[in-house]
Amino acid sequence: MVEIIETVREMQEKADALRKSGVSIGFVPTMGALHEGHLSLIRGARSECRSVVVSIFVNPAQFAPGEDYKQYPRDFEGDCSKAETAGADIIFHPSVEEMYPPEASTVVKVQELSEVMCGRSRTGHFCGVASVVAKLFNITKPHRAYFGEKDYQQLVIVRKMARDLDMDLTVVGMPTIREEDGLAMSSRNAYLNPEERRAAVVLFRSLKDAGERVARGEKDAEAVIQGAREMIESEPYTSIDYVVVVDPETLQGIKEIVCPARMALAVKVGKPRLIDNIALHPPS
Amino acid sequence: MVEIIETVREMQEKADALRKSGVSIGFVPTMGALHEGHLSLIRGARSECRSVVVSIFVNPAQFAPGEDYKQYPRDFEGDCSKAETAGADIIFHPSVEEMYPPEASTVVKVQELSEVMCGRSRTGHFCGVASVVAKLFNITKPHRAYFGEKDYQQLVIVRKMARDLDMDLTVVGMPTIREEDGLAMSSRNAYLNPEERRAAVVLFRSLKDAGERVARGEKDAEAVIQGAREMIESEPYTSIDYVVVVDPETLQGIKEIVCPARMALAVKVGKPRLIDNIALHPPS
Repeated sequence: MVEIIETVREMQEKADALRKSGVSIGFVPTMGALHEGHLSLIRGARSECRSVVVSIFVNPAQFAPGEDYKQYPRDFEGDCSKAETAGADIIFHPSVEEMYPPEASTVVKVQELSEVMCGRSRTGHFCGVASVVAKLFNITKPHRAYFGEKDYQQLVIVRKMARDLDMDLTVVGMPTIREEDGLAMSSRNAYLNPEERRAAVVLFRSLKDAGERVARGEKDAEAVIQGAREMIESEPYTSIDYVVVVDPETLQGIKEIVCPARMALAVKVGKPRLIDNIALHPPS
Repeated sequence: MVEIIETVREMQEKADALRKSGVSIGFVPTMGALHEGHLSLIRGARSECRSVVVSIFVNPAQFAPGEDYKQYPRDFEGDCSKAETAGADIIFHPSVEEMYPPEASTVVKVQELSEVMCGRSRTGHFCGVASVVAKLFNITKPHRAYFGEKDYQQLVIVRKMARDLDMDLTVVGMPTIREEDGLAMSSRNAYLNPEERRAAVVLFRSLKDAGERVARGEKDAEAVIQGAREMIESEPYTSIDYVVVVDPETLQGIKEIVCPARMALAVKVGKPRLIDNIALHPPS
């Protein structure tokens, strides 16, 4: 039976006891609404660690005003059973008050990386992410923490934070899990109506096309971006936030694709804003 | 013999091994130039913890441009022998490059508390303090960390950071250690020439006088502050940065002293900028 822990104190004592007895802790932070993407993270942790902790916490600090904090899908019962089946030992499920007492005022900022890409349109988002992940790391004390590549900028930022603040753990990035037609799994896909859902396939299609062009020798990032933009714009309901080709670690834009790079995009499909990304490998 | 550790990795492995074997870790972060104030922190840690780690690191990130980072007194050999005599088991002594690789970009900010008092004149100081202390906590993994009340705002900020980020440790505040004439011990006292040194006594004298007035029933913070300012201004070489009466936790200014409060001041005596503070207890 999966164990559910709701307080910081209890979770820390549990983690401390596990570490003391030499048990490795794998940690998967989630906002619930678990899909196959999350479950692959949990399975990854299961295969590498003796104890697997999954947090389920919809973090208000990472939603900008006007974003979907209130509507964000919540299904705690369903999530518990999915997480348990995938291999979770402990579910950490704190209340907002437990995580954010009214007087809390400390934030963690990963500068530069947080200001590009999604950071431009989602004010404060990555500061909210970095701060809550720092807290969750201090609470669950993992040896290894698992994040999906789907949220690529988040993965890079968390890895940078862990390194910069000397957090003694390994941040593990796991491949994006996709629907059969290629759409990256996301809790926000539930917002799509059937027509938008069909149109949303263009995100991955445009990325895959870009990846193939680069593999065949296209070096001009601007041309690759332009090709993807045209594919996306030819679909109904789409509105591009950004399409970029960046250095995989610094997230700075690059012009000539001569080393492995990352292409990332954010596109509104109807109301929901979806993101996706792909590795670009120039021919060697 | 005290053990000297210079790398993050080695210190973390050592701390991990200690924790695993059930040893409590007491941590005293310093910038070296150890005086009786630091030694009292080390003795405090010695009396409460099985293993005592002292860090010696002059943190460039907490000096504003134009401050005394380069001139800050350094005496590693002398510090080691003093720390060992006071009870240190391990001295963590990293290089600047070890602590701040060139690409480091993550900061910890304790908002509000960092903007008042010394935060007004020392831009970025408390962000530098909070960030390096967060790193040092992640590196030395203490159960208890010791800070002097002399740097009162720093103590409050570190305690708040630890609570807000769910760091699983106790921040211990220790009383200010003073010279015979009352001057608070500080590595920066070494900058004072003999005449400034004599004048510097007025800092504590003015605080003590304020404490006595409040103990006798004076409730008006402005009157208490004005009295201290006049005493300080009557001494040569002094130039007041601030004199405040604040809530001991929020550091917000208060007008009527009806609960325990903190009086704090920063005064330049010649070139050196000195700080001190005292608890104010109204009659019960």
